[in-house]
Amino acid sequence: MDYSSESLKRHKKLGGKVSIASKMSLETKDDLSVIYTPGVAQPCIEISENRAKAYDYTFKRNTVAVISDGSAVLGLGNIGPEASLPVMEGKAVLFKKFADVDAIPIVLDSQDTEEIITAIKLMAPTFGGINLEDISAPRCFEIETRLKEMLDIPVMHDDQHGTAVVTLAGIINSLKITGRSFEDLRVVINGAGAAGKAVIMLLKEMGVRDIVVCDSRGVIFSTRDNLSDVKKEIADLTNEKNMEGNLSDAVKNRDLFIGVSVPGVLTEEMIKTMNDDPVIFAMANPTPEIMPEEARSAGARIIATGRSDFPNQINNVLAFPGIFRGLLDARSAVLTQPMYIAAAEAIAKCVENPGPEQIVPSVFNEAVAPAVANAVRSCCK
Amino acid sequence: MDYSSESLKRHKKLGGKVSIASKMSLETKDDLSVIYTPGVAQPCIEISENRAKAYDYTFKRNTVAVISDGSAVLGLGNIGPEASLPVMEGKAVLFKKFADVDAIPIVLDSQDTEEIITAIKLMAPTFGGINLEDISAPRCFEIETRLKEMLDIPVMHDDQHGTAVVTLAGIINSLKITGRSFEDLRVVINGAGAAGKAVIMLLKEMGVRDIVVCDSRGVIFSTRDNLSDVKKEIADLTNEKNMEGNLSDAVKNRDLFIGVSVPGVLTEEMIKTMNDDPVIFAMANPTPEIMPEEARSAGARIIATGRSDFPNQINNVLAFPGIFRGLLDARSAVLTQPMYIAAAEAIAKCVENPGPEQIVPSVFNEAVAPAVANAVRSCCK
Repeated sequence: MDYSSESLKRHKKLGGKVSIASKMSLETKDDLSVIYTPGVAQPCIEISENRAKAYDYTFKRNTVAVISDGSAVLGLGNIGPEASLPVMEGKAVLFKKFADVDAIPIVLDSQDTEEIITAIKLMAPTFGGINLEDISAPRCFEIETRLKEMLDIPVMHDDQHGTAVVTLAGIINSLKITGRSFEDLRVVINGAGAAGKAVIMLLKEMGVRDIVVCDSRGVIFSTRDNLSDVKKEIADLTNEKNMEGNLSDAVKNRDLFIGVSVPGVLTEEMIKTMNDDPVIFAMANPTPEIMPEEARSAGARIIATGRSDFPNQINNVLAFPGIFRGLLDARSAVLTQPMYIAAAEAIAKCVENPGPEQIVPSVFNEAVAPAVANAVRSCCK
Repeated sequence: MDYSSESLKRHKKLGGKVSIASKMSLETKDDLSVIYTPGVAQPCIEISENRAKAYDYTFKRNTVAVISDGSAVLGLGNIGPEASLPVMEGKAVLFKKFADVDAIPIVLDSQDTEEIITAIKLMAPTFGGINLEDISAPRCFEIETRLKEMLDIPVMHDDQHGTAVVTLAGIINSLKITGRSFEDLRVVINGAGAAGKAVIMLLKEMGVRDIVVCDSRGVIFSTRDNLSDVKKEIADLTNEKNMEGNLSDAVKNRDLFIGVSVPGVLTEEMIKTMNDDPVIFAMANPTPEIMPEEARSAGARIIATGRSDFPNQINNVLAFPGIFRGLLDARSAVLTQPMYIAAAEAIAKCVENPGPEQIVPSVFNEAVAPAVANAVRSCCK
């Protein structure tokens, strides 16, 4: 199937992918008096006396916003708000399908951090959660951090944490297969953007002590020139021995390579310098840091990518529907690192017999979202 | 039926009134590749090359936002964003039912004019139109005016224009019944808020020359102390003879009373001083400026209210679904006075045999929204 032309055809025929449905039938004058005036005044009054009752009487109970400024969309980059709408609608379809969450796509006509924060803060009372999407680094970090501080609903930038959660799920099963522990794991990460930072945070939380991170200029170390704020933070969190060098230097004697970067940067020669049974997460989209067949011939034991046409697809859809299902069910005001870890462990457990070609469940495994929701809900107690 | 308790019950059981529905089925890996990556990139690319194609490939084609700050909700006043959600969801149900428009309820956590304008400007690329709702005067005037100037989608504050359009429809049929013309009509309006101003603008456009407007301090005249900006404008547009006095003075020898004010301010004695066959639009909610039976006993020929339990209900639902249906179908960037008049004429024509108790169609008349949509669309050519 030619996905591009089929996609254009279906989108044009239907006018996008989501619509609004009424939960209440409206056939009689009585219905109208219940749904609208005068009856509707009663839920309004109850909520005005206690804002929390919006979860009882309105769609806030089951609704999240999927919000983007269109600045870092798929592999397409900064394509602007309207052009990012098909992706946001796609996420809404996935939210509905896998977790019965009502997700509202909203795109913003600004890439100014302050304006974006203001707009989202203002619309927040409408929703039970905020899924930030495809916002470029480093703005995504400040936008998410400040919104989490100011809002009483959970906020998640999916490009960071969705990716990190599913990556962690895959790593959990990879360690079982290769008999390694988080404590002794030697990790190299290529890519210090949105996803890279979130992966580092989760790995640290899991007890990983030895992580080296590279960007396009090579290894990030604390005395390197011109480090951005985020990279300074990364330097503080990783590379304890303060090594310098390039990616080739960094991969030597490592157990796990995590690529959240650009196509083709990892070579067979580099993999050959890694420890035995190396594990490769090559998640650049649509073309990975190294193609699976090359990685295998260089000795990789386990290979994961972002693609559906290879085994071990690291796909955010395993995480975000269940995470928000759990948060909405718990009416949670926050979203924490322990919840992400619980979600990753739940995803990992959905693989019955982990093997080199089965470290994460299929995206169509319907047990995943409920398991994730349950795990997240347990953290809310 | 006890509408209040029934309303609470239904809202709580269902968690509000609207949800998100997927237009595309998602059952196979191929579906996922069409709806999401990699296929979704193609509509994104097409829109990035031409923003207008968002109408072809996304839900923008059929979607409006129903946006409120919760500052002037029903008869309840300033109850805040969360508490106004049930009303916004109710409008979304009406939009869907009567015109198959997908309306997204959004409430804003600010009553600052600049913040509201910024938030709506930022989210505008998502939608094909903006329905402002229940925003208090005078902020509603500036918010609507400035958004109309800056956005390339139509914007309507329904409390102003929806009310004005349906009022005008009722007046058109009232004039047929009483054999009067707009040119010679002598009008008194009580209430200089959101709806009052919009009614004045439409009546002027229809050729009415003699309008006097009262607020709680009496007749508005151009040399009156401490006039707000809006009331100065009203003074310029009306009361050519610059009369002074109170409502009792203003109603004398008038043909038509339009109340968009507060309960009980019009008395039988006042109606008796009006011209023969007086027409009374007493639209204060939920209790009219005068109850219909009193108005009738004082000699009123035609009486309209905002209530469903009396004849001649002036209900915005006759206007807004069809207006936005027409605007979306035409992909209109603007919403103009001629469109409002065309909508009012279309509503008036839906009454087959206008009579004193039938000046507007039933809210359940399914021919109204398509007729209004058609009339609005005709103005877009």
